[in-house]
Amino acid sequence: MSIAVCPGSFDPVTLGHLDIIGRARALFDQVVVGVAQNASKNVLLDVDTRLALVADAVSGIPGVSVAIVPGLLAAFCREVGAVAVVKGLRGGADFDAEHPMALMNRHLTGVETVFVVGAPRFAHVASSMVKDVARHGGEIGDLVPPAVEIAVRAALRA
Amino acid sequence: MSIAVCPGSFDPVTLGHLDIIGRARALFDQVVVGVAQNASKNVLLDVDTRLALVADAVSGIPGVSVAIVPGLLAAFCREVGAVAVVKGLRGGADFDAEHPMALMNRHLTGVETVFVVGAPRFAHVASSMVKDVARHGGEIGDLVPPAVEIAVRAALRA
Amino acid sequence: MSIAVCPGSFDPVTLGHLDIIGRARALFDQVVVGVAQNASKNVLLDVDTRLALVADAVSGIPGVSVAIVPGLLAAFCREVGAVAVVKGLRGGADFDAEHPMALMNRHLTGVETVFVVGAPRFAHVASSMVKDVARHGGEIGDLVPPAVEIAVRAALRA
Amino acid sequence: MSIAVCPGSFDPVTLGHLDIIGRARALFDQVVVGVAQNASKNVLLDVDTRLALVADAVSGIPGVSVAIVPGLLAAFCREVGAVAVVKGLRGGADFDAEHPMALMNRHLTGVETVFVVGAPRFAHVASSMVKDVARHGGEIGDLVPPAVEIAVRAALRA
Amino acid sequence: MSIAVCPGSFDPVTLGHLDIIGRARALFDQVVVGVAQNASKNVLLDVDTRLALVADAVSGIPGVSVAIVPGLLAAFCREVGAVAVVKGLRGGADFDAEHPMALMNRHLTGVETVFVVGAPRFAHVASSMVKDVARHGGEIGDLVPPAVEIAVRAALRA
Amino acid sequence: MSIAVCPGSFDPVTLGHLDIIGRARALFDQVVVGVAQNASKNVLLDVDTRLALVADAVSGIPGVSVAIVPGLLAAFCREVGAVAVVKGLRGGADFDAEHPMALMNRHLTGVETVFVVGAPRFAHVASSMVKDVARHGGEIGDLVPPAVEIAVRAALRA
Repeated sequence: MSIAVCPGSFDPVTLGHLDIIGRARALFDQVVVGVAQNASKNVLLDVDTRLALVADAVSGIPGVSVAIVPGLLAAFCREVGAVAVVKGLRGGADFDAEHPMALMNRHLTGVETVFVVGAPRFAHVASSMVKDVARHGGEIGDLVPPAVEIAVRAALRA
Repeated sequence: MSIAVCPGSFDPVTLGHLDIIGRARALFDQVVVGVAQNASKNVLLDVDTRLALVADAVSGIPGVSVAIVPGLLAAFCREVGAVAVVKGLRGGADFDAEHPMALMNRHLTGVETVFVVGAPRFAHVASSMVKDVARHGGEIGDLVPPAVEIAVRAALRA
Repeated sequence: MSIAVCPGSFDPVTLGHLDIIGRARALFDQVVVGVAQNASKNVLLDVDTRLALVADAVSGIPGVSVAIVPGLLAAFCREVGAVAVVKGLRGGADFDAEHPMALMNRHLTGVETVFVVGAPRFAHVASSMVKDVARHGGEIGDLVPPAVEIAVRAALRA
Repeated sequence: MSIAVCPGSFDPVTLGHLDIIGRARALFDQVVVGVAQNASKNVLLDVDTRLALVADAVSGIPGVSVAIVPGLLAAFCREVGAVAVVKGLRGGADFDAEHPMALMNRHLTGVETVFVVGAPRFAHVASSMVKDVARHGGEIGDLVPPAVEIAVRAALRA
Repeated sequence: MSIAVCPGSFDPVTLGHLDIIGRARALFDQVVVGVAQNASKNVLLDVDTRLALVADAVSGIPGVSVAIVPGLLAAFCREVGAVAVVKGLRGGADFDAEHPMALMNRHLTGVETVFVVGAPRFAHVASSMVKDVARHGGEIGDLVPPAVEIAVRAALRA
Repeated sequence: MSIAVCPGSFDPVTLGHLDIIGRARALFDQVVVGVAQNASKNVLLDVDTRLALVADAVSGIPGVSVAIVPGLLAAFCREVGAVAVVKGLRGGADFDAEHPMALMNRHLTGVETVFVVGAPRFAHVASSMVKDVARHGGEIGDLVPPAVEIAVRAALRA
């Protein structure tokens, strides 16, 4: 049984993420969505909220689970027995940023990183822009699942 | 009458920005330079200073005005009736970073983003480097308008 | 009145081209589609067929005309009085290839090149792939206008 | 059982190709190497020789087979029941070139393209350079399998 | 006698940095490794520790020295009489980020920036990832010199 | 004494090439311009003409000579005792194309490839565009040395 990990900050999870997770699931028997405990950037949502929102969003998809990545992604992949990390690519500059990380993860535990192309209709969806749009009162209902919209608006009011 | 917006942090406005603004003006009937209120990075100059320096720099150019962008760029474009956002591109990685934002702005209000190429003689001019050069005592008189040089040096002494 | 040129080989014109032409038309008063007489690559369709197919495809759009570009694009732009060349960009590598040409055209006649982003739903549509798909018996009806499909299939049978 | 296709011209197959094929095999139950009948560029080796050299090179790897791709890659993938096309990426410009093709193949038959990163020690190995080195009397024994070296040298003498 | 500068934050120096320094030394008579006093990002190690670790790592290489860059890199290059800044490139996006800085340094003092390609076997080694791996208890003994590993682990415990 | 090679097709040599050659000469004691005998593309000028035009253009620069590269660039570098190949880069996609070649040349003979950035004022100058402009009757006098203009116009009349 082949297992893949879809890693990220998921601050918050978007329809773009769910598109990539679905593609990963079509390629591998099981997908574990790995939510980074310590996201590198200032996050809007705490890790438990981010985890819960992903769990809710993927609850209907058989073979997809979610877990917190407490430390190194490579170590997490070894623990869950993943053969692959699956990431979406938007453009060449994305690849250039991911390239050394993919090699490092392979170096650390042999896990392979595979890159897929998201659905073009989500090409404008990214967590950072979702937060920016919401912060300024714009519509995000067509960018994220309903529960995420509620959570983001709540967090922005806090 | 076609209106375009040239957005940015303008911290501070440089000769490179003015080159792009001039090109936008040659393509559209009116150009509104949009100064971001909440620039994403730590700014050296407050928004009023940034606005005043742009206003001073474009005061001689008919059809160019300047305003603060208080929230979403897309909303600002709708308010001023702009058909286009005009941005300068330096290289492919620039485009890759701008691509999802252009699609998001189009998604939000239908405004088109058009990319132009700056004059090669300003290829070395960027706000971040202008501040870095000034901070270490280097010459910036050939990178920014005279009033900007004065303001930057004053802000760095503060 | 502002005039823009949308240049290309149009071998054949695709729904992706028409998307860019429509965006150009929304930005400028008039758009002249410029069909390169001497396309650099081996073309499937002769220049008159390429011109006729573009003419047919844009016949319903007010303010859009089509002409053959017999020599330098820059000279053609000067002749038709264009202020801008409009091109679609797919990614950073595209921009890197277009960058020196944009500077050369500006150098020769001062015409500005502006880059726009096509609709994501046409991200997979390119003339070379349309011909490849048709050559191998695939469906191209959702990639090109009906008249183009007929012409391409006829040319491939010849 | 998951099946992936590794497509290419394989003119000739190199150690770099075999590295990618091995990675694909570690991710999927079966890998079919697809040798393009009509390679787009002037090939040195005819398709039967290219096929035979790949067959020889992968003969020791369980779960890897080879076949000629007579037409569209997407059609070939449907015929062999592949869920994925696997390709190696060297850099961002590679991705930009592959991006529309990946979307087209998905559009035609739903097959997903997944990109992996080759082993850095083969970063200098490409079929075009192998032929160029051999043509000028350089060593290629550490770039390709032994049988390929013999075949390339024979073809260059012909 | 030709002098080159290898600049960086060196937070910490890695085997990848030493590879580039060795390549610079093979091209120029003398190499001065320039350790940025004010690294732009949050550093793990203070500048004296970063300097000492570089000094230790290059102590065995004739013609290589190390110094702190207190301000502008261009001014430092002029002081040490350097004709060139030598930097390693990993990909196209790296180049796009370096391009304007190279032009600015040339503009300020005429120093040329030359880019070299690192050894592929270090393609996964970057200071940021070294710190990340160490922070989470991973092995870094094959990424940095022994003294660096000790210093990084000590700093992370502090 | 350090020797560098500036390779190319030089079909024809342009002011952009001469800019890069001058930069190489400022970094190394001697520069050998290497004119490829078998340029990969259809050349306008035969190799002797291309060699003669480079020889004429660099005749006034001490320490710069020119020679034909009859086969592999790496072998040529070994013969002339070069430590480096010097190439100009325009953008990230250029780098991505050069990267594997640089690694291959290093693999074959240990020669290092160093990339420099050309003067922005020549960013629009490339041999292919020079020929294209001349072919259509445009001005090339500010793109190439006078002797080159004469030779190109003569070749185009032939």
